[in-house]
Amino acid sequence: MDLAEALPLGELAAAFAALPVFPLFDTAYFIISVLYLKYEPGAVEMSRKSPFASWLCAMLHCFGSYILADLLLGEAPIGHFSHNSSVILATAVWYLIFFCPMNLFYKCVSFLPVKLIFVAMKEVVRVRKIAAGVHHAHHLYHHGWFVMLATGWVKGSGVALMSNFEQLLRGVWKPETNGILHMSFPTKASLYGTVLFTLQQTHWLPISEANLIFFFTMFMIVCKVFMTATHSHASPFAPLENLVCPVLFGSVSSGHPGHHHDHHGASHEVSHPPPPPPPAKSKEELNEGTRKRKAKKAE
Amino acid sequence: MDLAEALPLGELAAAFAALPVFPLFDTAYFIISVLYLKYEPGAVEMSRKSPFASWLCAMLHCFGSYILADLLLGEAPIGHFSHNSSVILATAVWYLIFFCPMNLFYKCVSFLPVKLIFVAMKEVVRVRKIAAGVHHAHHLYHHGWFVMLATGWVKGSGVALMSNFEQLLRGVWKPETNGILHMSFPTKASLYGTVLFTLQQTHWLPISEANLIFFFTMFMIVCKVFMTATHSHASPFAPLENLVCPVLFGSVSSGHPGHHHDHHGASHEVSHPPPPPPPAKSKEELNEGTRKRKAKKAE
Amino acid sequence: MDLAEALPLGELAAAFAALPVFPLFDTAYFIISVLYLKYEPGAVEMSRKSPFASWLCAMLHCFGSYILADLLLGEAPIGHFSHNSSVILATAVWYLIFFCPMNLFYKCVSFLPVKLIFVAMKEVVRVRKIAAGVHHAHHLYHHGWFVMLATGWVKGSGVALMSNFEQLLRGVWKPETNGILHMSFPTKASLYGTVLFTLQQTHWLPISEANLIFFFTMFMIVCKVFMTATHSHASPFAPLENLVCPVLFGSVSSGHPGHHHDHHGASHEVSHPPPPPPPAKSKEELNEGTRKRKAKKAE
Repeated sequence: MDLAEALPLGELAAAFAALPVFPLFDTAYFIISVLYLKYEPGAVEMSRKSPFASWLCAMLHCFGSYILADLLLGEAPIGHFSHNSSVILATAVWYLIFFCPMNLFYKCVSFLPVKLIFVAMKEVVRVRKIAAGVHHAHHLYHHGWFVMLATGWVKGSGVALMSNFEQLLRGVWKPETNGILHMSFPTKASLYGTVLFTLQQTHWLPISEANLIFFFTMFMIVCKVFMTATHSHASPFAPLENLVCPVLFGSVSSGHPGHHHDHHGASHEVSHPPPPPPPAKSKEELNEGTRKRKAKKAE
Repeated sequence: MDLAEALPLGELAAAFAALPVFPLFDTAYFIISVLYLKYEPGAVEMSRKSPFASWLCAMLHCFGSYILADLLLGEAPIGHFSHNSSVILATAVWYLIFFCPMNLFYKCVSFLPVKLIFVAMKEVVRVRKIAAGVHHAHHLYHHGWFVMLATGWVKGSGVALMSNFEQLLRGVWKPETNGILHMSFPTKASLYGTVLFTLQQTHWLPISEANLIFFFTMFMIVCKVFMTATHSHASPFAPLENLVCPVLFGSVSSGHPGHHHDHHGASHEVSHPPPPPPPAKSKEELNEGTRKRKAKKAE
Repeated sequence: MDLAEALPLGELAAAFAALPVFPLFDTAYFIISVLYLKYEPGAVEMSRKSPFASWLCAMLHCFGSYILADLLLGEAPIGHFSHNSSVILATAVWYLIFFCPMNLFYKCVSFLPVKLIFVAMKEVVRVRKIAAGVHHAHHLYHHGWFVMLATGWVKGSGVALMSNFEQLLRGVWKPETNGILHMSFPTKASLYGTVLFTLQQTHWLPISEANLIFFFTMFMIVCKVFMTATHSHASPFAPLENLVCPVLFGSVSSGHPGHHHDHHGASHEVSHPPPPPPPAKSKEELNEGTRKRKAKKAE
């Protein structure tokens, strides 16, 4: 029995879940993804020096989730690139953001109100990907809980989970951190969301997939838009984590959420890299500076 | 004809080979694997700061061999995680070793006599994995000698062969060494064992699989238990290698075995990391020189 | 309609395309590949200290293109190693180049006139691989333009595209550059060649595969032999790139070709590594310290 089917928004959720993402929402997804690539220190110079590597990076940012999921499930990691229209669209977005005359396109899409709309649309795609990932894994491994969780998670987190290698492609190497050691909000939310979708898929959560997609998308949009608008990094999960973690794992630095490297918003945060590499840190700060400047330019 | 079938221990070997490994021996395997993860510098802090990354590391230590073998054979690297009971068992072991109140569980299992028993049991699982790996590869590539060797080897060595990436997940990066450049005893023994199992599989070694499993397991147990008990790192293969290598590959530094980084006991040994780090750059220059000279010589 | 079929060299091209590469041309391919491995700084010492790692490196140099293509297409990356004869041949070449008494074999094959012949023969194999890669991808993804391009490219470039990881296996780590960020001539030529073969495969290029193989092989031989003979690194594509890139991607440093790290001839060029190393080095040392301290704490 489904407790939400009764409410009038049952149909709304169904209609929302049926909404096609391809041209419109995907475009928003690509725009925000490539935007964050451009925020990365050195990304612009690279796009001038070796455009091909820059394009490859952009593809990783746009299709990282498909590549990782295919890798995990032993399918062709390049398989998704057989969707030519999708790749061409992403390429167009990359070209406009990096090479549009007078940086016009970049200025438009990084204008906050516009950007917020795209951020919201990106979350719609993200949640769909998680649902699809869990669904696909459930189809392959009917009782493979952990496989469903892993697949949904990588589908939701995308390039953040291979940040080290995406950076390596750009000639940058920061081994002291990665998207798993310091989870950004989207990475962590994808993880929690995947748990919900896995429970739903295995009928432990009495709610229809359409409703779950609807509610979780709303949650993600509200959080991400708020965080982007206010440049805040207070994880909405912090209270819960600070309640549960100490019980389960002993004393966890409650300042932990502050440590998050929001990979998808690196440009905006004051990052606190862990102690290990002092020199790296100073480099970090320098980049921070250039990053800030870029960010400023963006507004 | 089988020269060992005659001996009375033929049935013993058969019975031993038929012994199921799942709950008991696997538990020992997980305990020792996670134990060595906890020995790694920084592993404990990580388990407090980001328990999820710590859990992922533990999974790599417990299931690395399956992940690598599946990767090599183009199967789903996450496939083995569909065995929920196995993953849950490994998770329980990880939790007990890292978060048990008063560190009780850790103290028990790392108490030498207890530990030696588990070490012995782990070798039982290791040898089974090698045999299974060779068997599986032989099934896929009937005459693929090198495929059998590779599969058996990674099944036996496990996480040691991806040490660099396991460290990267923990934010540690030691490029100057890896589990292939400086083979630990288990890695090397797995390699030699795989050769035997491949010869047996292709009927070049006149011995039944059961007997080979029995004898090789005994050899591994004796060696590993002795080495763990005495903290020694003198490779039992050194004499043979010092005899063969000079003939085949010219002068090999006979001090080589001493340099082994026993990945599964890194914390115990006084590790001699090869000079590179500081001289890395200067070496670079020297090499520049040698390279130049070589180039000259080439003409 | 085929504009080259008219010419008398139509049959010549067909005969050339039908030429088997296995024993002869492959040998040349292996010789040149392993030769460039030996040119790498530290490769010789490694071959003495850990022959197995050296052999593995040699295999990456000889079969990297197959490994990468299989990885991309979700097939067994180790699959090609089931061709025992091919692997044994490569192993023999590796052994002769590294361990032949008095370095005789090395001296012979690196004697310029001899080397040039092998270089020419290697290009024959490279072009065949590109054609086969595009063909295979076209068979799997009938309209997957990008899949064809990627497959053909990795088949042509081989180990250069995984240079970072090939170096890591040798204990070397140069994150500041890679085979994509600074494309060598073979890598770039493979990319352009793949475009041609993809167009041909999808009937946009009115020329028979045999003719395209013939002409492109000739082009590659001429360029590579010339560049090897003169130690030049002036990319033949520079003029075209300097014409097109500024229009498409704004100002590109026209000094770019000079910066190429010709991975297949690293030994010959005066490389300009970007600044990073020094700070990385000191970081290394600091980590060394913290690591030692942690290790102490462990006991």
